[in-house]
Amino acid sequence: MTSGLRFLIAAKRCEISELQQLARTSALVSAVGGLIHGLQRERGLTNLHLASADGHWRQALFEQIRHNESLQSQVVECFDGMDMAASRLNHGARLFSRIAYALQGLGALPALRERLHAEQWSTERATASYVRLVGGLLAVVFEAADAASDPGISRRLVALFNFMQAKEWTGQERATGSALFAAGQANAAAQQRLLRLIDSQERCLQVFQEFANPELHQAWLLSQRPEQQAGLERMRRLLCTAPEGAPLDRQLSQPWFDANTATIDAMKAIEDQLAVELLELCEARITAARTELAGYEALTADEPLAGAATVDLSFFESPAAGPRNAHAALDPSAPAFGPQVDRSVWELVQQQAQRLQSMGHELDTVRASLNERKLVERAKGLLMAHRRLSEEEAHKTLRQMAMNQNRRLVEVAEALLSMAEVLPEPKH
Amino acid sequence: MTSGLRFLIAAKRCEISELQQLARTSALVSAVGGLIHGLQRERGLTNLHLASADGHWRQALFEQIRHNESLQSQVVECFDGMDMAASRLNHGARLFSRIAYALQGLGALPALRERLHAEQWSTERATASYVRLVGGLLAVVFEAADAASDPGISRRLVALFNFMQAKEWTGQERATGSALFAAGQANAAAQQRLLRLIDSQERCLQVFQEFANPELHQAWLLSQRPEQQAGLERMRRLLCTAPEGAPLDRQLSQPWFDANTATIDAMKAIEDQLAVELLELCEARITAARTELAGYEALTADEPLAGAATVDLSFFESPAAGPRNAHAALDPSAPAFGPQVDRSVWELVQQQAQRLQSMGHELDTVRASLNERKLVERAKGLLMAHRRLSEEEAHKTLRQMAMNQNRRLVEVAEALLSMAEVLPEPKH
Repeated sequence: MTSGLRFLIAAKRCEISELQQLARTSALVSAVGGLIHGLQRERGLTNLHLASADGHWRQALFEQIRHNESLQSQVVECFDGMDMAASRLNHGARLFSRIAYALQGLGALPALRERLHAEQWSTERATASYVRLVGGLLAVVFEAADAASDPGISRRLVALFNFMQAKEWTGQERATGSALFAAGQANAAAQQRLLRLIDSQERCLQVFQEFANPELHQAWLLSQRPEQQAGLERMRRLLCTAPEGAPLDRQLSQPWFDANTATIDAMKAIEDQLAVELLELCEARITAARTELAGYEALTADEPLAGAATVDLSFFESPAAGPRNAHAALDPSAPAFGPQVDRSVWELVQQQAQRLQSMGHELDTVRASLNERKLVERAKGLLMAHRRLSEEEAHKTLRQMAMNQNRRLVEVAEALLSMAEVLPEPKH
Repeated sequence: MTSGLRFLIAAKRCEISELQQLARTSALVSAVGGLIHGLQRERGLTNLHLASADGHWRQALFEQIRHNESLQSQVVECFDGMDMAASRLNHGARLFSRIAYALQGLGALPALRERLHAEQWSTERATASYVRLVGGLLAVVFEAADAASDPGISRRLVALFNFMQAKEWTGQERATGSALFAAGQANAAAQQRLLRLIDSQERCLQVFQEFANPELHQAWLLSQRPEQQAGLERMRRLLCTAPEGAPLDRQLSQPWFDANTATIDAMKAIEDQLAVELLELCEARITAARTELAGYEALTADEPLAGAATVDLSFFESPAAGPRNAHAALDPSAPAFGPQVDRSVWELVQQQAQRLQSMGHELDTVRASLNERKLVERAKGLLMAHRRLSEEEAHKTLRQMAMNQNRRLVEVAEALLSMAEVLPEPKH
């Protein structure tokens, strides 16, 4: 077998192995998504319980906790079942570190529940703890989306990740609003947070729309019933416009929780469809790659011995081919110098080079949206460290800068990060 | 052992495995660099031989070819010795495809030599063939640079790749000038190419300066002797300013070839130092990662059984920690809830998360330079396909657009690519 063909076969095997890894990661993402959903609901019920103080929400909350305990063991089992000996996993170091981080949070969750109920924590403090826990789990999903090198799969992972993130902002909105209604009093800081959460939901859903299968986006739009939306928007207005300290109708706690929960449950159904679609795509890609591999392997049987092969000059003669020229077409008029098999190997090498090139191009486009997210997060981290701002304030500062300069959020983030070197050391 | 610690250990093992892979790839890059060096010289001598027609260069050329045959078998051996069963190799599909492509060219090289001497090819056609072959080998190095996820190693690989690319532009300049002096006649198209090659050398050397160890950059500057530079610049001026068809002094063939060869050999010495430094860096990183791994593993011995461990709430309490806040410092005043070991695991998890975060940041910066290269190549490919331009003309068009719009080359390339969708299909 010529070395060229052997390397083509090795390349295809790598591709298959990576696709299999993506399929396994997709299954993991589904399990994590289920637990996140449960924790989001627990967070909302915890706020209702802590703020209302009449015990009305106790039973629903404790049922949810029991349910989540079982979801949690499923996820931990799923993590523990990962092939950790696969030390050559793509991006394995990052993925495993994220999982280690998430597991620390899950391990401390029983103690958190005990403590926050025993000490009657504020709803803010309770929410912040659940937000951190869910954030750790979402970071696992983000890492998975970042590791895919098949652009089609990467698109779906980006759509899924942004949809899950939008759902998390919605969940935080439910929890924040629940605390306000249950306490029966408006609060300016919480109102600011609500406005930001609504804005963040919309941004994530835009990315979802851009990258998802149009049918799934349509399904999401259809799942939002207008009468439910109207009720939700009315309660949002009440929450966000009441002056600081003004009374809020405690009776709206239940409708607020239920309306938001209906939205979030509908999102979970879409999320599940996204996960199924992702898995199907992985399987289809694996099947296709296996067929190609079989084709390559069949060629090795026909091939003459390396030494005996007639030489083929087409490498040097086909116009503008080669891995650096993505858009060059194969030239069928180029003269064939060698026997048919050599010619076939050369065509396969060219096809593969061009395919990888255009895949790389597409992948860069998809990744851009993940990179934007990274840049904005990083700029926020910088503001938090240097100006001692909360995440909330840092986000607001960035948005304000973007509005003032009439630039996109990511551009402001980039400009800020490029100045990082000249900024003074963070205060301690 | 808690799951968190197990995943930390798995993450560290992945990191070590990737570093080992990088070390092996670095060794491969050295072998490829040696062959490229020989082929560059063969290209220059081929042009002198083809253009002079008096047989003066024959012996030097055939000695070089014999030498290159031995370099080529070393490289092929090196490729064949790769662990192709390592189907989980990071970016394996891309690297192996590049190798398959390069091997096709190397396989056809004996036939190329025979044909071009028998048929007395033009120097342009001969140069183009060698350029394609070297391009295929450099693409292997580029893929290796693109796969590194340790930012320090990635910096060195980017420096090395750009230096190798600068050396290739210098080699092309030597070959083009050799053909002109040996033919004894100025040629406007070749002059244009020379100007572009000089410009490209400078751009690549700027990137090298930016990313290389300052000492190596200094060594490169010191290796350029002023008297040699002066002679070279004088000959460059003669080559580039003579009117179309004007006579050129054939006697300058030898000094031109020798002066360029001295520069290129000096570059090879720097390239070898870059490769040694890269390998040393890989080894140092591996040693450091192994020490960290041993530290993690030692912890598992002290650790209480998972069920018996006292709970540690620090996940929820340490301020602004977590993978999304790169700049947050560990808070030593945070109360420790659990026993010392749990506390240690949590600190390790945090440290690792922060380390990966800042590595990701640094890596993005380094990668930007590789991405710029990709964008420019892709925009050139687009122009070549849509307007039926040569690579030369496409490059010139891009540069002209950049100058007219007073923008950077990469910005013009990006703008062009974003319009790709609305362009008509390429002509066939």
